[in-house]
Amino acid sequence: MADTPAGRQREVTVTDVARLAGVGKATAARALGEYGHVSEEKRELVLAAAERLGYRPNELARSMNTGRTRTLGVIVGDIENSYFGNATRGITDVARRAGYDVILLNTDENVTVEIEAVRVLTEKRVDAMIVSPASAYAVDHLQHLVDTNYPLVLLDRTIAGLPAPAAVIDIVPAAEEATARLIALGHRRIAFLSALTTDGMTFHGLPLGVSSVAERISGMLAALEAAGIRPDHDLLRFGAVDRASTDRILGELLQRDAPPTALVASDSTVVRDVLAALKSRGLRVPADISLVSFDDTGWEEFTDPPLTVVSQPVHANGEDAARMALRILGVDVLGTGDSAGHGDRLTAHLVERSSLGPPAS
Amino acid sequence: MADTPAGRQREVTVTDVARLAGVGKATAARALGEYGHVSEEKRELVLAAAERLGYRPNELARSMNTGRTRTLGVIVGDIENSYFGNATRGITDVARRAGYDVILLNTDENVTVEIEAVRVLTEKRVDAMIVSPASAYAVDHLQHLVDTNYPLVLLDRTIAGLPAPAAVIDIVPAAEEATARLIALGHRRIAFLSALTTDGMTFHGLPLGVSSVAERISGMLAALEAAGIRPDHDLLRFGAVDRASTDRILGELLQRDAPPTALVASDSTVVRDVLAALKSRGLRVPADISLVSFDDTGWEEFTDPPLTVVSQPVHANGEDAARMALRILGVDVLGTGDSAGHGDRLTAHLVERSSLGPPAS
Repeated sequence: MADTPAGRQREVTVTDVARLAGVGKATAARALGEYGHVSEEKRELVLAAAERLGYRPNELARSMNTGRTRTLGVIVGDIENSYFGNATRGITDVARRAGYDVILLNTDENVTVEIEAVRVLTEKRVDAMIVSPASAYAVDHLQHLVDTNYPLVLLDRTIAGLPAPAAVIDIVPAAEEATARLIALGHRRIAFLSALTTDGMTFHGLPLGVSSVAERISGMLAALEAAGIRPDHDLLRFGAVDRASTDRILGELLQRDAPPTALVASDSTVVRDVLAALKSRGLRVPADISLVSFDDTGWEEFTDPPLTVVSQPVHANGEDAARMALRILGVDVLGTGDSAGHGDRLTAHLVERSSLGPPAS
Repeated sequence: MADTPAGRQREVTVTDVARLAGVGKATAARALGEYGHVSEEKRELVLAAAERLGYRPNELARSMNTGRTRTLGVIVGDIENSYFGNATRGITDVARRAGYDVILLNTDENVTVEIEAVRVLTEKRVDAMIVSPASAYAVDHLQHLVDTNYPLVLLDRTIAGLPAPAAVIDIVPAAEEATARLIALGHRRIAFLSALTTDGMTFHGLPLGVSSVAERISGMLAALEAAGIRPDHDLLRFGAVDRASTDRILGELLQRDAPPTALVASDSTVVRDVLAALKSRGLRVPADISLVSFDDTGWEEFTDPPLTVVSQPVHANGEDAARMALRILGVDVLGTGDSAGHGDRLTAHLVERSSLGPPAS
């Protein structure tokens, strides 16, 4: 009984099928698993018995013959972040058109969970994995997929030295443009807040963990350099994972001798927490401080004030990720707007609303 | 070659392992599948060969012995809707503490896709399924799970006549309270907008498809009745699935001889589209029209004006769903705040902000 879920009928086994068919268990297993030699007569007996008993075919054994489960596995960093919901929708839309199902796992941006997720998807024998890696350094599990030729596509983030295709959006020019706009308004001290936890791993102010965040910063630094402004790495802040931490970080920034006059939020979740922190301090945007965010989830245009954002084609990027995975599998991908196949990397663009103004003092 | 994914190394098979171990294939299969008799000596030879070749254990065969894959399958209506992202996070948090992985599939609120999703999860042998059913009527696939004692928990929605536990939030009292507040301000014509597509299936104004939407309406009707206001079923509108359809519906409502003076949006996605439709028509909230929404995703307090909402404990409800599923499986669920076990149904509550005012005219 310990092996049987409470109240659940016992699973029909190969032994049950063999008994009803009047054949040996090995014969039944071969017939059901479609391997080895079974006489046509016995095969039919086994299949008839299996149907009568409601034996659930062993999908795994079957897939080892066809080589396919027609399932894509997707591993995302944070399912509560609109970015991943939207990208997953893009993946699913393309996969469904190709007759593929999509299975999703969430890592909470935790590498240990990601390693477990890869294990689960390997055991569930998905045909390919689409992964937004939580770390660019703890990547042995992804390297192992590459080494064993397990189809892998990276989502949103690249990993240096890992030869896997990546569906990523070029965000650097738009990040640079947004920063240049702030500089043109007179801002010199522009802070950046990200949920990324770097554990102190930065290099020249660039977080070493996640390429998509590094690219945001890279664009900001390029704009500062072009304007001859020396970047202040103390204005780059990480670990804004919730309201409390974001509020704490904002408090630290505002207590500096030279506080920032503008804030750049790394994603839609961060900017929501930044809005809360500003509101609780009675700070107005843009009169007291300017604010730019990445992503455009549909809410940013209705906030008070409407937010200037770097908008990303997230759904299209998800579609590209699915196309890349299916292409590795040799699946013909029908449908319109295939950007990934033409070497045209998707690009983000600046959407100007009302959250930028001149520095307060 | 047709059976091998392009560029992918051939899978290590039982035959390969048997050859290296110097045993028969049936013996290797028994040792690897942990069934039948194998001498200890041969078993060790097989396992050593399997390890050396990197043979991936057949999770399915293994699970047929333990009866468990330690995986929960979750089927949600719309992964882009914050509700489901948040609920899924709750499910995952509890599952992870119990050592269970969570696999997620999205149906786009499409029953055909839901049927396929149940098939996929059955084949992946998840131990239990948590499903937000897209329909309360096309439920044969869910009835089949119940009939075969496959552990099933419904999420967010109940199905009359289907004896499966449901993790649902009691939203009726808060919906009634929100409507009573509107009535107290002087509103008599209060419209309701939902993304639900009813295909005309309503009964006394109640959509027959989804219980959580029916409960919203039920609360509204109770408040109207208590105030002696005869409900106008033409003010209940469905199919607000995107900006265009929501804009069209709002246009129809506003062109009525007696247009609504207040709007109730069924969820956070709908209210975003309502805000867009109001903005494009130059209508101000609450001066021109009052607005209430269900859910509180974190953005509603920062819109212009901040929105009055019926807030639901979505994360806690996801946690409850996971606890119910694990309890069916006989898994001890540690952790705090177990509401589901005590018959205390989670309840929604009204959060008053600034989107309600007296009727315009």
